[in-house]
Amino acid sequence: MILDLIKKENDIKKISPEKYDQLAQEIRDFLISKISVTGGHLGSNLGAVELTMALHLALKLPEDKIIWDVGHQSYTHKLLTGRQAGFDTLRKHGGMAGFPKRAESDCDAFDTGHSSTSISAGMGLVKARDIQGLKHTVVSVIGDGALTGGMAYEALNNAGRLKSNFIIVLNDNAMSISENVGGVPRYLQSIRTADTYIEMKKSMEKALKKIPKGVQIIDTLKKYKSSFKQIFEPGMLFEDMGVTYLGPVDGHDIQQMVRLFKEAKKIDHAVLVHVITKKGKGYAPAERHPARFHGTEPFEIETGLPKKQKTKANYTDVFATVINKLAARNEKVVAVTAAMPDGTGLKRFRNLYPDRFFDVGIAEEHAVTFAAGLAAGGMIPVVAMYSSFLQRAYDQVIHDVCIQDLHVVFAIDRAGIVGSDGETHQGIFDMSYLATVPNMHIMAPKNKWELSDMMKFAVTFDHPIAVRYPRGLAYDGLSEYRSPIELGRAECIFDEEEIALFAIGSMVKTAQSVRDALKEKGHACTLINARFAKPVDEEMIKSLPAKHKLIVSMEENIADGGMGEKVRAVIDDNDLDVDFLLIALPDAYVEHGNVDILKQEVGIDDKTITERILKTIEGKA
Amino acid sequence: MILDLIKKENDIKKISPEKYDQLAQEIRDFLISKISVTGGHLGSNLGAVELTMALHLALKLPEDKIIWDVGHQSYTHKLLTGRQAGFDTLRKHGGMAGFPKRAESDCDAFDTGHSSTSISAGMGLVKARDIQGLKHTVVSVIGDGALTGGMAYEALNNAGRLKSNFIIVLNDNAMSISENVGGVPRYLQSIRTADTYIEMKKSMEKALKKIPKGVQIIDTLKKYKSSFKQIFEPGMLFEDMGVTYLGPVDGHDIQQMVRLFKEAKKIDHAVLVHVITKKGKGYAPAERHPARFHGTEPFEIETGLPKKQKTKANYTDVFATVINKLAARNEKVVAVTAAMPDGTGLKRFRNLYPDRFFDVGIAEEHAVTFAAGLAAGGMIPVVAMYSSFLQRAYDQVIHDVCIQDLHVVFAIDRAGIVGSDGETHQGIFDMSYLATVPNMHIMAPKNKWELSDMMKFAVTFDHPIAVRYPRGLAYDGLSEYRSPIELGRAECIFDEEEIALFAIGSMVKTAQSVRDALKEKGHACTLINARFAKPVDEEMIKSLPAKHKLIVSMEENIADGGMGEKVRAVIDDNDLDVDFLLIALPDAYVEHGNVDILKQEVGIDDKTITERILKTIEGKA
Repeated sequence: MILDLIKKENDIKKISPEKYDQLAQEIRDFLISKISVTGGHLGSNLGAVELTMALHLALKLPEDKIIWDVGHQSYTHKLLTGRQAGFDTLRKHGGMAGFPKRAESDCDAFDTGHSSTSISAGMGLVKARDIQGLKHTVVSVIGDGALTGGMAYEALNNAGRLKSNFIIVLNDNAMSISENVGGVPRYLQSIRTADTYIEMKKSMEKALKKIPKGVQIIDTLKKYKSSFKQIFEPGMLFEDMGVTYLGPVDGHDIQQMVRLFKEAKKIDHAVLVHVITKKGKGYAPAERHPARFHGTEPFEIETGLPKKQKTKANYTDVFATVINKLAARNEKVVAVTAAMPDGTGLKRFRNLYPDRFFDVGIAEEHAVTFAAGLAAGGMIPVVAMYSSFLQRAYDQVIHDVCIQDLHVVFAIDRAGIVGSDGETHQGIFDMSYLATVPNMHIMAPKNKWELSDMMKFAVTFDHPIAVRYPRGLAYDGLSEYRSPIELGRAECIFDEEEIALFAIGSMVKTAQSVRDALKEKGHACTLINARFAKPVDEEMIKSLPAKHKLIVSMEENIADGGMGEKVRAVIDDNDLDVDFLLIALPDAYVEHGNVDILKQEVGIDDKTITERILKTIEGKA
Repeated sequence: MILDLIKKENDIKKISPEKYDQLAQEIRDFLISKISVTGGHLGSNLGAVELTMALHLALKLPEDKIIWDVGHQSYTHKLLTGRQAGFDTLRKHGGMAGFPKRAESDCDAFDTGHSSTSISAGMGLVKARDIQGLKHTVVSVIGDGALTGGMAYEALNNAGRLKSNFIIVLNDNAMSISENVGGVPRYLQSIRTADTYIEMKKSMEKALKKIPKGVQIIDTLKKYKSSFKQIFEPGMLFEDMGVTYLGPVDGHDIQQMVRLFKEAKKIDHAVLVHVITKKGKGYAPAERHPARFHGTEPFEIETGLPKKQKTKANYTDVFATVINKLAARNEKVVAVTAAMPDGTGLKRFRNLYPDRFFDVGIAEEHAVTFAAGLAAGGMIPVVAMYSSFLQRAYDQVIHDVCIQDLHVVFAIDRAGIVGSDGETHQGIFDMSYLATVPNMHIMAPKNKWELSDMMKFAVTFDHPIAVRYPRGLAYDGLSEYRSPIELGRAECIFDEEEIALFAIGSMVKTAQSVRDALKEKGHACTLINARFAKPVDEEMIKSLPAKHKLIVSMEENIADGGMGEKVRAVIDDNDLDVDFLLIALPDAYVEHGNVDILKQEVGIDDKTITERILKTIEGKA
């Protein structure tokens, strides 16, 4: 194994060029073998093997800086910087992260996770370098999908006036997670199928040589240099912005890339190197099903099929079913996603209602304001987005949707702890940041039927409204409790006395276990399904002290600004004579790992909650 | 007066073309005369007079929709849609808004205020139109400054694949509020100084005609249509994105614009009409000082000088002084602004430390992640931004700055009620949304000296930290209270008993008045300057019940997730035996108008607070 010779960064330089292909193959085999066991991002990593090798050959780490946009394609980078052993604990609790982490290696120059940040961060590192008179190279590696994000453009616009070297590698696999959309991806497509340019050049040269004053024409053209470049060279979109364009280059040809990177290092301003790669390269199932192998559960290498077949529906499936039904009944219902038709469950909607389905690309801000425009025009847009990505559109929620009190429905998936993706992807802020917004309403369902009911409620409710639900299996317990959804009203599931558990969303299920445990200890428990985090059911809360000495609010969201604070405010403002215990996530980021372990760690598992309740009661007694 | 003939939308069509210039002049005179009294946005409106007239001539309102990006340039639009009388109450409490408002007129298609939203909103209106089979025209009018915002690009990328008409008018005055920066503005500049293209075309045609096979070459060129366009036509940046480019056209030539808009209406996809205007057009002082006349206080028409000369420093001035000092002492201190070197007080910094000053354009997300990159590279970036615009970068604060616990300082200007700009510009959310972010720290100064002290503290504090301060005059009272800033420690100003006022930032001054009023009523008051909204001074709060029966938290921020909730949590979690009253803004948007009136309206003025405290005490007695 050549791979075994690579113990740390720069070791790759000891490998002789004729062994590069073998090394690439070994890396692919290694990644497939490891990820088939641990799960993780596969397609993007298989696509970036040679690109990463070429970067490591052309650069000197850790002095030179590589910023991996999104970061899930950094596995080969981790392998080449001495983290081979980490792949057995990849994305596991306490194990190696699935994204670059400065805390993990000094070869990781900047933490990433969300899309389109790398050029901005790279610009910052470039300016910091220049101010300090340092000479290292800074490289941002960004995918063509991430290039549809507005931040990337804001950064490119600024990169265009840099007066020192900055290399942007466009890792172009013609895909974001799903297929790319929009004018810029189409433009890149036109470069990829570069025949136009090559044919053009040949044909022009031929035509010019044949005619008497051909040379004179070439001179005329050359007088207008930028126009001349436009006709003969691709990449003018970037050149127009002031960024030199190099490429396109085959992203699986290491030596050609190394040559180009070395050339790029000589340029005294920003340069974009256009590298064409194939997502899933070298593993047939991943090449065939790029979306499925973007992020994958453990799978059988032979077949590419998941090791565990999914037998029960997750919340995304439930959402998918109900949104399709709602669209069938009401032709005003339209759906908006930011590059996640698969992840958010809108794939079938896209097929059923192509004219009412909008995938805007990785562009969350646009998605939300676009939805506001749809609503102002009389539609009922459902914006399906992951919790941590909706953070991107906080201002658009305030400014474009809620000031005008427009009927936009937010279907917020991956709300709560998501597990192995870690800090950047935890959906633990949404109940807080959305609650700050006037005119916004926030719901979370206790089980799969309630998600349906809430979606139905949301599309008939003529104001901004969000439904947040977690990653993973949809809870199918408590099926007999299905009272109609009413604005701001909670649902009392078990009406007892002494302790009132006021839980929302995923925590209703946890509250059931807590209730059972408390019963065993001789304590009676009322269980209330809060349903609305905003507005909270003030009447319900005010009714509780009559029979209860303790109210426990429970939410899978940070405490700051979450539902519990609103419950506490009702208790305090009304001078209710009752003790209060707030269960929520602490003011800290939550790392990657198994969801159950993480819940224990942050103290929102049934055992910890039960203990805290018992301690509270005993403390008061 | 021709202007008097225009009572409502479409009335302009009754004016004969030879009177257009006179009408434009009357509108200018009207705007200058009115704004000189009320204050408001002048330069952008003077620049857009003819553009607005041309749009109203080419369109039919309210069926056709115009979305004004940012919206402060919509005064002529308001005039032409029957709101002449509103200009006497412009931006006053209860009067006409300074921005488009759907609630104000059915000719206002979408509310705006922040930059770069119009293409997204327009796309939404276009899709809503198409789905419903309607036929009206949708026009988004966006400035060249707003075009540096990432949202605009996200939207353009999507507009590039529209299959129905959508008109984007690029109102290009070569300015955002200050001068534009970056590759795209430079690109637009190259079109504006269009000689290259015109000369090129002439020269090519001449050369081709002279030679025998010239026609053949033209044919060859035409075979590669897009390349052919590149050489002969400007605007390829947009064409590359799939948006047809028309222009440039003189934005003060009404008939030429009307012709072009009519042509644009015929196109069956997205079309960008490039209109060149002059900011401040027709009023010499505004043409000379575009930044000063962007948003202006009442001024003397003759001289252009403000009616009231500013005699005292505002918080922006104080920030400007201290940041320059800090930069002189520590060469790691760098400053970042998003198109607001004037507004945020960084103008002098730019001159003093050009290499350490970064104006990134209207690009708040990039600004924050760029700052994170600077910090990761060893600098101490100070991001100076208005509170309502930092909302744009909420995810970047979470994801790029705070996960990595990077030392980025946020100098948040216009925090609190800003007055006449209204809902979109009120800085009333920042203490809440920033408090949700782990590793973030939040301060607010009681007076001008404390702003200096806090900035000094912030640049030595090796974690993310924000200092928020309001618009307007810097408070210069309480100058004798200047104890050193310590992390998470409040400052006790007056140590008494009975009632403890726990106030932050601007509310410390208000608390002084409240304290005086309560003293008159025979109540003693401790006054504590909270200094930190996150973390709040838990020890201080815990010490209060010994001598006080009521704690009153006071903040100029919404209640949800604000400082008061944290004070309440400390009281509750520690079972403190004390009453609590939370003074903050209600869960609602705050309209435009005089700041003092608005404060009364939302109940954070000294009189209302005093009454609420007395009522609370009496209620308990």
